[in-house]
Amino acid sequence: MTDNAFLTACRDAIGASHVLTDPHDTAPYLTDWRRRYNGAACAVLCPANADETAALVKLAVAHRIALVPQGGNTGLAGGATPDASGAQAVLSLRRLNRVRDIDPHNNTITVEAGVILADVHKHAEAAGRLFPLSLAAEGSCTIGGNLSTNAGGTGVLRYGNTRELCLGLEVVTPQGELWDGLRGLRKDNTGYDLRDLFIGAEGTLGVITAAVLKLHPQPAARVTALAALASPHAALDFLALAQRVAGPLLTGFELMSDFCLRLVGRHFEQMRYPFAEPHAQVVLLELSDSESEAHARTLFESMMETALEQGLVEDAVVAENLAQSRAFWNLREHIPLAQAEEGLNIKHDIAVPISRIGHFIETTDAAVAQAAPGARMVTFGHLGDGNLHYNVQAPEGVDANAFLKQYQGPINQIVYDSVHAHRGSISAEHGLGQLKIDEAAHYKQDVEVRMMRAIKAALDPLNLMNPGKVLR
Amino acid sequence: MTDNAFLTACRDAIGASHVLTDPHDTAPYLTDWRRRYNGAACAVLCPANADETAALVKLAVAHRIALVPQGGNTGLAGGATPDASGAQAVLSLRRLNRVRDIDPHNNTITVEAGVILADVHKHAEAAGRLFPLSLAAEGSCTIGGNLSTNAGGTGVLRYGNTRELCLGLEVVTPQGELWDGLRGLRKDNTGYDLRDLFIGAEGTLGVITAAVLKLHPQPAARVTALAALASPHAALDFLALAQRVAGPLLTGFELMSDFCLRLVGRHFEQMRYPFAEPHAQVVLLELSDSESEAHARTLFESMMETALEQGLVEDAVVAENLAQSRAFWNLREHIPLAQAEEGLNIKHDIAVPISRIGHFIETTDAAVAQAAPGARMVTFGHLGDGNLHYNVQAPEGVDANAFLKQYQGPINQIVYDSVHAHRGSISAEHGLGQLKIDEAAHYKQDVEVRMMRAIKAALDPLNLMNPGKVLR
Repeated sequence: MTDNAFLTACRDAIGASHVLTDPHDTAPYLTDWRRRYNGAACAVLCPANADETAALVKLAVAHRIALVPQGGNTGLAGGATPDASGAQAVLSLRRLNRVRDIDPHNNTITVEAGVILADVHKHAEAAGRLFPLSLAAEGSCTIGGNLSTNAGGTGVLRYGNTRELCLGLEVVTPQGELWDGLRGLRKDNTGYDLRDLFIGAEGTLGVITAAVLKLHPQPAARVTALAALASPHAALDFLALAQRVAGPLLTGFELMSDFCLRLVGRHFEQMRYPFAEPHAQVVLLELSDSESEAHARTLFESMMETALEQGLVEDAVVAENLAQSRAFWNLREHIPLAQAEEGLNIKHDIAVPISRIGHFIETTDAAVAQAAPGARMVTFGHLGDGNLHYNVQAPEGVDANAFLKQYQGPINQIVYDSVHAHRGSISAEHGLGQLKIDEAAHYKQDVEVRMMRAIKAALDPLNLMNPGKVLR
Repeated sequence: MTDNAFLTACRDAIGASHVLTDPHDTAPYLTDWRRRYNGAACAVLCPANADETAALVKLAVAHRIALVPQGGNTGLAGGATPDASGAQAVLSLRRLNRVRDIDPHNNTITVEAGVILADVHKHAEAAGRLFPLSLAAEGSCTIGGNLSTNAGGTGVLRYGNTRELCLGLEVVTPQGELWDGLRGLRKDNTGYDLRDLFIGAEGTLGVITAAVLKLHPQPAARVTALAALASPHAALDFLALAQRVAGPLLTGFELMSDFCLRLVGRHFEQMRYPFAEPHAQVVLLELSDSESEAHARTLFESMMETALEQGLVEDAVVAENLAQSRAFWNLREHIPLAQAEEGLNIKHDIAVPISRIGHFIETTDAAVAQAAPGARMVTFGHLGDGNLHYNVQAPEGVDANAFLKQYQGPINQIVYDSVHAHRGSISAEHGLGQLKIDEAAHYKQDVEVRMMRAIKAALDPLNLMNPGKVLR
């Protein structure tokens, strides 16, 4: 057990039982959940509240200890894993888990950083409101992590990313001061937008300890439908039609290629292909209707009729009840699971302007096919946001490990070069962490990287806040 | 005519005819449109494009000349007016007025900073899309100014402030480098959010030269209604009802006190009070419906019926046609005009959490009445955003100049203290400029001001970008 002046001071500040140093206790905090990154730490610090967090940051400054803030440890880019030196400390925010306030008339909820996303959903629902951020890890990710990575998910089309769902923040600065920016205001133009600087900064500029989040009215009904299409290009025209017909009621528009659905069918036999005939692409649509389920179904039916008449859609099915709506979402949610069953693959979380998705898929597929003949493209995602999970699986029957070893580098370069040529993003919703730090620096203009560095140096001159993440 | 090395270099860079120094030519740029601020300048520089803008900033750096960026010069806080020294130069962005691109499938338009807001509306409409930012100055304000002040207006309830309507920026940095951040992406998590730092910075961190703006589908119909209520408290309950019933179709919810409507009637005789009986408060609602006018009217009628039954609303009228919808908006838009006719007054553009609006009005009205007996409260604004124009008019028959001289200071303090106590904002949508710079510093936590200063010093170490605005 490490014992030094820093740890002694930490124990005095938050109690010895909340300063973890036993390898058995610290292990879960030192590896990311996909087990891609494994770090070491002099301790895992578990403060109970914002004041204790501030006290710990002050101690870290005094002792020049770098801190790695961590929420639910569900990140996909290694942003919450310490380096291998053992000199850094993990700052776990999980004990900051109080809902401080809920204000239905203001449509806001004030929560601490360690509150689990699914618990925010529950509290909002109990007040007759909706907190629309929704993603696979919602049962264990924390709102602090969602904010620090500006998490996206399936509700972005209508409700925006985490950034758009946050009105105010409480932050411990790199100097250990507590900034109370917990404003529950829709309009506030009194200076620089510090809130949005901390959101998405992955803990490199300070530690988010609480937030005021925006709530929405609960829709009366959510109804889903599936549409079968010939190509991503057709899906784009169909998206424009759906947005015109349904306006803001359209809350989901997810693309799934034929191969994605076949993979799901192969590994989960209860998940049947939803159409009689195979189709190149399937889109999952969701309407969130403030009137009624019947109104949503009527809207869907008229939309599908128009799309069939115009030849945009080859076939369509509207969910008949809540169970079928869930079943359609289940298909979509089983794609990553089926892919994991199929074996290791090369993952990309990319975004391009929505209008360029068809061209992006066409040209990138062709380039990947040329570089790695037989590679299988697992392309799905949030088409309405221009965000694709553009994953590449080894050819049928080929050893996945060998394939990755040979092709991961070249295929990453093909995909990211293509993203860049389409003026897209190499990390749409997962952040940079330590995974994409060099790629981001490579594709960004120098002037942008210099501005980022200037801000980092101005706010965290000692470089103690999650060093080595976002910026090298 | 001033002649020095800086001006000679500017003439070489952008042509002598675009470097204005004749007092007759420069005068319109040196006074804000409300004529509260009057400055001087060594020149007014009118570059044609982003490259020329960058070249001018480089020259300003070389010669240590401070620049005051200016768009349509319609700001309400003196943010675009130079100081009195005559040493600063105004940088007018009006000639950067090209629409660079419109992409209906991506729902984006790329415009230069000098494009007039109303022209963005027209281009969007021609492509079957809506650009929802709407405010009184839209015929002459520019999108660069809207971005630099994060303008609000009447569409914020559904569509957000200018910040929420911008996906990417092109910016000339304080070093004269051109940053191409013109990303048309809904999701991009690759580093610090520089975009939102420049938005609302009022030209103190760099010069916005172009932006990618978000478009929305054109609604099939917009219908308005008026509801008469007994109090702001009732208006809050009614807002919750309207949001539950109409969800995202509710795009406007404006409060007007009885006295506001009387003032309109007094000065514009064609504008009649819209109800048979007087009511303490009137709310203007707008629905933007993707189906039809008939659907919107039905929705309004059922909403009003429920509100009448619940006793939230005392009377209501739904516009029967487009002309009547316009007439209802006209009432609202004539309040500031009527107030100007009535005489000088003390204006406040404030926001509080929506749930606290009733309490804010009650307690602040009482405090003002005690300090300045007989003062008349002109309270109206964007209730759905928690944003009030909370203005104070001299008592009936009292000389407005004398009233302002005596009461402006004490009343400002009463209002801002009350805003602060309600965790509100002293500048909801107008920015700080030079008008509210000391008040903002007074009410903000020191740690926030220090972070703002650190960022300013990091990005603009020579303090040449609009010095003396936002921060002293």
